[in-house]
Amino acid sequence: MYDQLRFDYLSCAGHPHLHTPNFDRVAALGVRFSNAFVQSPICGASRMSFYTGRYVSSHGASWNGFPLRVGELTLGDHLRHVGMDCWLIGKTHMQADAAGMERLGLRPDSEIGARQAECGFDVWIRDDGLWGQGPDGFYDERRSPYNEYLKSNGYTSENPWAHNANASVDADGNIASGWMLSNAGKPANIREEHSETPWLTKRAIDFVDHVEEPWCAHLSYIKPHWPYIVPAPYHDMFSVDDVLAPVRHEKEREAPHPIYAAYMDGKIASAFQRDDVRKTVIPTYMGLIKQCDDQLGVLLDHLEDNDKMQRTLIVLTSDHGDYLGDHWLGEKDLFHNQSVKVPMIIYDPRPEADVTRGTVCDALVEAIDLVPTFVEVSGGNAVPHILEGRSLVPWLYGDSPHWRDYAISEFDYSPTPQSVELGVDPMDCRLFMVFDGRFKLIHSEGGFRPMLFDLSTDPNEFFDLAERPEYKAVIDRMYSRLGEWGRRCSQRVTKSDDDILNMRGTSTRKGILPFLVDGSEVPENLTAAYRGPAIKKF
Amino acid sequence: MYDQLRFDYLSCAGHPHLHTPNFDRVAALGVRFSNAFVQSPICGASRMSFYTGRYVSSHGASWNGFPLRVGELTLGDHLRHVGMDCWLIGKTHMQADAAGMERLGLRPDSEIGARQAECGFDVWIRDDGLWGQGPDGFYDERRSPYNEYLKSNGYTSENPWAHNANASVDADGNIASGWMLSNAGKPANIREEHSETPWLTKRAIDFVDHVEEPWCAHLSYIKPHWPYIVPAPYHDMFSVDDVLAPVRHEKEREAPHPIYAAYMDGKIASAFQRDDVRKTVIPTYMGLIKQCDDQLGVLLDHLEDNDKMQRTLIVLTSDHGDYLGDHWLGEKDLFHNQSVKVPMIIYDPRPEADVTRGTVCDALVEAIDLVPTFVEVSGGNAVPHILEGRSLVPWLYGDSPHWRDYAISEFDYSPTPQSVELGVDPMDCRLFMVFDGRFKLIHSEGGFRPMLFDLSTDPNEFFDLAERPEYKAVIDRMYSRLGEWGRRCSQRVTKSDDDILNMRGTSTRKGILPFLVDGSEVPENLTAAYRGPAIKKF
Repeated sequence: MYDQLRFDYLSCAGHPHLHTPNFDRVAALGVRFSNAFVQSPICGASRMSFYTGRYVSSHGASWNGFPLRVGELTLGDHLRHVGMDCWLIGKTHMQADAAGMERLGLRPDSEIGARQAECGFDVWIRDDGLWGQGPDGFYDERRSPYNEYLKSNGYTSENPWAHNANASVDADGNIASGWMLSNAGKPANIREEHSETPWLTKRAIDFVDHVEEPWCAHLSYIKPHWPYIVPAPYHDMFSVDDVLAPVRHEKEREAPHPIYAAYMDGKIASAFQRDDVRKTVIPTYMGLIKQCDDQLGVLLDHLEDNDKMQRTLIVLTSDHGDYLGDHWLGEKDLFHNQSVKVPMIIYDPRPEADVTRGTVCDALVEAIDLVPTFVEVSGGNAVPHILEGRSLVPWLYGDSPHWRDYAISEFDYSPTPQSVELGVDPMDCRLFMVFDGRFKLIHSEGGFRPMLFDLSTDPNEFFDLAERPEYKAVIDRMYSRLGEWGRRCSQRVTKSDDDILNMRGTSTRKGILPFLVDGSEVPENLTAAYRGPAIKKF
Repeated sequence: MYDQLRFDYLSCAGHPHLHTPNFDRVAALGVRFSNAFVQSPICGASRMSFYTGRYVSSHGASWNGFPLRVGELTLGDHLRHVGMDCWLIGKTHMQADAAGMERLGLRPDSEIGARQAECGFDVWIRDDGLWGQGPDGFYDERRSPYNEYLKSNGYTSENPWAHNANASVDADGNIASGWMLSNAGKPANIREEHSETPWLTKRAIDFVDHVEEPWCAHLSYIKPHWPYIVPAPYHDMFSVDDVLAPVRHEKEREAPHPIYAAYMDGKIASAFQRDDVRKTVIPTYMGLIKQCDDQLGVLLDHLEDNDKMQRTLIVLTSDHGDYLGDHWLGEKDLFHNQSVKVPMIIYDPRPEADVTRGTVCDALVEAIDLVPTFVEVSGGNAVPHILEGRSLVPWLYGDSPHWRDYAISEFDYSPTPQSVELGVDPMDCRLFMVFDGRFKLIHSEGGFRPMLFDLSTDPNEFFDLAERPEYKAVIDRMYSRLGEWGRRCSQRVTKSDDDILNMRGTSTRKGILPFLVDGSEVPENLTAAYRGPAIKKF
């Protein structure tokens, strides 16, 4: 998994200037899903859906730092249940439910507690890549294995993640922080081999070389997520000529939906509305991706050289995209494809998948489909009463399974400046996307009108149709889908469908016999306990 | 709490032949809520909503014996958090999540594990009153404190719950089981003082006399739930003359909704369609309630005699009703008022409640409102990100709070014979009721049409309007409400609204500074960690 990697910043997905031969190499070996959506276009919530196989409203961790409730089942629980270990190498952005763990007496240093605290993974290495530091201390208070690595390699500052990996150095020898977009074009003040992406690739290779199979590894890169800065030679590998024109339209600024307007007016969007910012940042973003691609090549070569490619299933994806100025926005958060659609490339080495190698699948895929896919690949049974996604294996095998009609994504903006500006209560700061392959409806709680786009006539999502009366039937249909989804059975996690089928009728065989008129309705052995022997009269 | 007590089988609620002076006594001291609905008209699911303060689709324990997931917060968790103990005396019908507890390493004999296994209560005594016995053993495999009590009082059979408390004895000295409706009119073969309701009242009085205050006690009677049999003198206190005519209409049998039809065709309904059954069972049901009322009097007198009435808040309610042949049905399960509406009488001793004593409140109350009520009474803060109900205290104080527009109830019929007959997959065996005080919509998953009743013109709910085109707008409006409810924020249980308001902007003070163009946008102290001192160039 990459972080903040747009679906269309790969050459296999059509980027005209960014050549990513190693992503393309996996795509040529497998299937590229061209309609893959995340359950929420923000790191934490999206990842909790990737890891639980459940919608955001089902697991509840709807924003960065909202703890995943203790006991929520994750990929690790499902895989270990069928004998497959499940490891973390990199970022999760998971916040442990410390209050819930304390309530249940779970110590973080116990095996069970540690897995609860780490989203069900066994930790090979965890690094969320957010070693920010300010007047109130570090954003992430854990020990930073990456900072320790840098320090052991001669980077002597207090926080080399911030001062070297994510900063340049100016002519006077002062730190030029990567937090400032104006510094994005400068080379990070670090040897390329020590920067985050190669560092994590080395950890992954260590893992591959040392951990007994079978395993599932969540290799989770921090990049191309901001801070937007990259070491040489990647910092000047792309130029302003490689920057695509922003996908935006003046029409979007006319009477926009209030929430979209609040986002367009925000600090982030304002920055990315500036040409100078885009021209500085985007070549760097491309450089970060290019470095990811090169490191992917290193890892693929290592697997090949060690004869592991033919027994390793590989999934390449991202937790969300990046607007980069499209739709007058920066970052992610809303539901335009630049934000909510992600790369999803799956290589399955098994011969059954030979029929689909190098193909593209346009089925409506959701991030939550990966856990059921991994469970099936590991030999487990489907558990649809817990996992809300569906295994993608049939697509890999060239089947055309009966599939979902619509994809759902959600966003909770309650902790953001937009919620303050709009004056919306936290509980109402919730957005829902329903996309059926053609129409995309966005519903907002809090009394706002919906938004509607027709991607068949408006693939760029410029023209909001929601207020046009001729679309009322479409809107009703989309709301009907959202309603159906809202009624889904998502919390009956302690009882499977098979359990239910098996329990039918069992209570009568255990003496619960209501509504017999005289007992003749059932076999005699069922009522035996309620007849003689003769009993004393009280 | 009583079990299976219909809302209208109390004299304060208008029953013409059943005099319940002790229920009426509490109603005269407090407020009777005349529109109180359970979240599911079946014991287990309804109770899990009463105990968690959450809708069935939120806690997931949608049928009897479906375990309440480990870690789900209950009344006990909320009350102990504010220094109030929370005890169980009687029935919960709760199934522990043994698999979840094992996964988290929680032993049932630890304090935390025991509370998890007992729905958050500390157990004074637990007795679910379902000591059925058949060829596959006991329905409930726990030890039965009630059977132990009976044995110590000279009832020598293997299962005196079944053979004495819930059976009569015939002229030949043979057991005449209370499971057979034909035996309902006979006196139970037990001294009245030893039957279940007086037994539990004695346990409650022991509790009141011995447990240090403050406490919350869930005194949870098994009756008037079936088996329908009651000891003398209650067995012949009511006669066929006291049996009200069935509330049913031939129109209901014409082209009924398929699920309603399956219920009307079932074994239970067929029994209660028989006049002989109604005339035998209903006087007994009334006798069981009369006994409950007398025992309530014993308990109230004890509280008064010990000067505890003025510091004890009392709530009288039930987990669901009983059709008793109305609508051609027996039992509960569906959403006619006979099934889904319950008594709800609250006596609050505080002087602020003096203004409402003896009044009736017709607000749309749900079972989930009780946990927030108890939290408020205990001095706790509202936790609306966990508790989906709302405190009833404002109504007790004579306020008219802004209130909900509709009540929701749900029913999962996946383990029932109807699901088999209809051939519906477990996941689709789900019904939803939306009632706005006038219209009642019933939605069924699985492709069935809805049902609609207008209680303003059809208070008996005989005439299903769902197929009449002039009601399309009403149906759309009710579906819109169901849709809104389906999108509710029910799982963000680890982060309160206050937590969210307090986290806004904190990340910038911990060094997360994305999307600054040059740093001049924020105070200098926020960027201090990213400027000098001069750094070595790599």
